[in-house]
Amino acid sequence: MELKVGSPDLEPGDDATYARAGFGGGFAKGERPAVVVVDFARGFTDPASPTGSDMTTAIEHTNRLIEAARTAGCPVVFTTIAYDPGTPEVTWLRKARGMAGLTVGSPSVQIDPRCLREPHDPVIVKEHASAFFGTALLSLLVSHGADTLIVCGATTSGCVRATAVDSVSAGFPTLVPTECVADRAQAPHDASLFDLQEKYADVEPVDDLIAYLGSLTEGQSS
Amino acid sequence: MELKVGSPDLEPGDDATYARAGFGGGFAKGERPAVVVVDFARGFTDPASPTGSDMTTAIEHTNRLIEAARTAGCPVVFTTIAYDPGTPEVTWLRKARGMAGLTVGSPSVQIDPRCLREPHDPVIVKEHASAFFGTALLSLLVSHGADTLIVCGATTSGCVRATAVDSVSAGFPTLVPTECVADRAQAPHDASLFDLQEKYADVEPVDDLIAYLGSLTEGQSS
Amino acid sequence: MELKVGSPDLEPGDDATYARAGFGGGFAKGERPAVVVVDFARGFTDPASPTGSDMTTAIEHTNRLIEAARTAGCPVVFTTIAYDPGTPEVTWLRKARGMAGLTVGSPSVQIDPRCLREPHDPVIVKEHASAFFGTALLSLLVSHGADTLIVCGATTSGCVRATAVDSVSAGFPTLVPTECVADRAQAPHDASLFDLQEKYADVEPVDDLIAYLGSLTEGQSS
Amino acid sequence: MELKVGSPDLEPGDDATYARAGFGGGFAKGERPAVVVVDFARGFTDPASPTGSDMTTAIEHTNRLIEAARTAGCPVVFTTIAYDPGTPEVTWLRKARGMAGLTVGSPSVQIDPRCLREPHDPVIVKEHASAFFGTALLSLLVSHGADTLIVCGATTSGCVRATAVDSVSAGFPTLVPTECVADRAQAPHDASLFDLQEKYADVEPVDDLIAYLGSLTEGQSS
Repeated sequence: MELKVGSPDLEPGDDATYARAGFGGGFAKGERPAVVVVDFARGFTDPASPTGSDMTTAIEHTNRLIEAARTAGCPVVFTTIAYDPGTPEVTWLRKARGMAGLTVGSPSVQIDPRCLREPHDPVIVKEHASAFFGTALLSLLVSHGADTLIVCGATTSGCVRATAVDSVSAGFPTLVPTECVADRAQAPHDASLFDLQEKYADVEPVDDLIAYLGSLTEGQSS
Repeated sequence: MELKVGSPDLEPGDDATYARAGFGGGFAKGERPAVVVVDFARGFTDPASPTGSDMTTAIEHTNRLIEAARTAGCPVVFTTIAYDPGTPEVTWLRKARGMAGLTVGSPSVQIDPRCLREPHDPVIVKEHASAFFGTALLSLLVSHGADTLIVCGATTSGCVRATAVDSVSAGFPTLVPTECVADRAQAPHDASLFDLQEKYADVEPVDDLIAYLGSLTEGQSS
Repeated sequence: MELKVGSPDLEPGDDATYARAGFGGGFAKGERPAVVVVDFARGFTDPASPTGSDMTTAIEHTNRLIEAARTAGCPVVFTTIAYDPGTPEVTWLRKARGMAGLTVGSPSVQIDPRCLREPHDPVIVKEHASAFFGTALLSLLVSHGADTLIVCGATTSGCVRATAVDSVSAGFPTLVPTECVADRAQAPHDASLFDLQEKYADVEPVDDLIAYLGSLTEGQSS
Repeated sequence: MELKVGSPDLEPGDDATYARAGFGGGFAKGERPAVVVVDFARGFTDPASPTGSDMTTAIEHTNRLIEAARTAGCPVVFTTIAYDPGTPEVTWLRKARGMAGLTVGSPSVQIDPRCLREPHDPVIVKEHASAFFGTALLSLLVSHGADTLIVCGATTSGCVRATAVDSVSAGFPTLVPTECVADRAQAPHDASLFDLQEKYADVEPVDDLIAYLGSLTEGQSS
C-alpha cells in the first residue's frame, strides 16, 4: 500500500526531510491485540447531530474488523464522550463548545446501534479527546495483557489521533485501519492520517489487519 | 487576526460544518500563566541534525515572549527529548526512529543556546511527544498555581500539538503564539495550527500574548 | 493538636529518626480549596454490606465541613467505586475481591443519602484506590483553579490514603480532617494517619479546617 | 507462609472483618515479570544520610532476586528521587522537607553501589513517592510486554507502598518480596506490609519469588 494521505500538500523536499528524520518506521505486530472503537456514538455518527456526520462506511469496515477480533479472542472496547448535565466545569468545553451537548443519559452518547457491540464489551466514558486521558483504558489493556492496539472510530483529526498518540506513548504498537476512521472534513482527515503514519501509528488497509487477526486465530487453533 | 491555516484545503461547506459543531471557542485568559517551550533543543533547531530544521525565527519570537513572561513573574519551563544510550526499549522509537539519536548527554538534547533560558528554569526530560506524558510537568504547573499555559516550540504537528491537547485536557486554557511554533514542513504545520485553533487552543499572534503578559505586570505593580 | 496516631507502636528513637529525615512539614493553605469526599457510598458506609462498616460519625463531621465549603464557594466532589456487571477484567479485583460486588447501578455504589450532596456536585466513578487514578479528577480540579485539596471519606488506609498521596504528588497542598475519615479497623486507620501526617498531608482537626474555610468566606465578603 | 505483619495491633474481630470484605486474594503470576528496585540510592541506604538507614539485608536479598531475574531474562529497573538544585517548586517537598537534599548530581541520588545494577538497567528519576507518578515507568513496562511487577526497595511505608498501589491499579499483578523491602522504623513497615498483602500485592518470601523466576527460566530453556 502506498500512503498518499496529505501528500498533495507536501512541497518538493518534504519527503526527503521526513526520510532523513527517520520517521515512518513500522511496528512488529503483537500476539495479543486489542481494538478500541473511539466515539462511534450517535452524537458523532448521526448527520442530524450538530457534531455528527455520515460515518456509515467507516462503521461497516469497523464491524468487519470487530468480527475478526472476536474470532481471534481479542478484547473490543468502545468509548463515548459524555458530560454531566448542567454546566460542567471542563476547560475543553470552552473551546469545543458543541461537545457540551453530549450529556450523560442522552441519545447522543449512546454507541451507534449499527456497531457490533456485545453487552460485555466495555464502554469507556471519557471527557477529553484521548481515550486514555482520565480513563481506565490503560489499566484495562494491561489487565488484559494486550500488546498491540488497533484504533478505529471518529474523528481522525480529533479523538482518534489523540488516542493513537497516547497509545504509542504508553508503549503499544499502534495500528490504524484506514477505512475504519472518519472525520467531518476531508483535509483534516488526510493531514492527520499523514502525521499518524509518519510519527505514531501504522496506517494500514483494514483487509491487512483482518488478515493479521485471522493469523492469530489460526495460531491459536493449531 | 483571521486564521487561515489549512484553509486552502478546506472544501466548500467545511466552515459551516465546523461552525455547526461549535468548535473554535475562545478561553478567558487566567492570571497566573506559565510558558512551556517544547523541544527547542539542538536536535530540532540545528538544520545539520537529521531531525532538525531552521527555527531561528520561531526562537526569536519565543525569546520576546519569554522576556515578557519573566517581567510578569511567570514560570518558564523548557523540555527536551532524551533517551538513555544503547537501545532503549521505547515503542515510539520503532516508529520515530530518528529520535533514537537524541541520547542523554549528547549535544542534540541540549536546549538551543540562543534560547533565553536562565539557570533556574526547569528542563523537563521527556521520552514521548507530549510534554505531559510520563513527566512531572503537570505537577510542576499545579505546584506553581498556574491557571493558563502558553505553548511554544517544535514541532507544530508533533510535540507542540500533543502538548497542547494534553494541556487543555488537563484543564488549562491553552494558548499557542503563531510565530513561536515551527515545523519541518509547511503543510503539516498549517494543518495542525488549524486543528489546534478549532479544537484545543487559542492560536494567537505573539504580540497579543506579549500584551496579555504585560497587562499582568501592570496589575501586579499597581 | 498533638498527633498521637500510631505512636504507641513507635519504638524509642523513631521520633528522632523521622525528625532527622525532615518529615512532618506543613503546607501553607491556599485560597481556592476543593473538597473530595472519597467513597462514602453505601457499600462502604452500610454495616450490612460485606465491604462496609459504621461511618456515621465521620459522615456527620464531613457534612459540617461540606457546609463550610459551600458557604466559601468551594467545589465539593464525591467519588464512588463502581464496575460493570459481569466479570470485569480488572487486576485489582483479583486482590480486593469484595469490591467486585460494587456494580454500576446497584445500591452499593450510591452515595450515602446522609451525605449533604447537592445535585450539581460531581460524582467521580473510579475503579481503583486513588480518586485520581484513571479518572478526570485532576482535570476537574485544574478546571476549577483549585490550589488546595481537602480529602475526606473512606477508608483511611485504602482509598483516602491513596488519594492523598496522589494529591500531593499532583502538586496540591493536601489536608485531611481527622474526624472525617474512617476505616474498618482501628490499627490500619491509626497507622495510615501517622504516615499521612508525616509524609503526605496535614492531618488536622475538622474544626480547624472549618475555621480555615470560614476565613475564606470572610475574605470574599469584605 | 503465615503473614503476621501488623497483626499484633489488630483487635478481636478485625480478621473476620477483612475476610468478610474479601481482601487478601492472590494473583496468578505472569510469564513476563519485571523487577523495579525503588530508591535503593545512597540517600536512603546510607545510615549517615539524614533520610537514610541501614538497609544492607534488604539489598542483599534484592541482589539474589535480581540474579534470578537476569537468568530468566526479565528487565530490572531502578529508581531514584532527584530534584534540580536550588529551590524546586515541588509541593511534596514542603511536607517531606528532607527529600530536598536529594539533588541531581549529588552522591545521595546515586544507586547504592552494592546493588547489582548493570549499565543497561534503566534508572527512572522520580520526584514523588510512586515510581509511576510523572515518570515513563508504565510506558517502559508496556514496551517490554511485562505482565507482572515485582517491587523491591525503600521505604516500605513510602515509595514502595505508593509504587505497589499504582502498579496494581495500572493492571499488573504485583508481588512484594518481604525481605527485599526496608523502612526507617519497624511499626510503619509492618503496618504497610499488612495493608499491601490485604489490598494491593502478594507479599511473599523472596525464596518463593526466586523459585518462580527460576521456573520461567526452565520453561524458556526447554
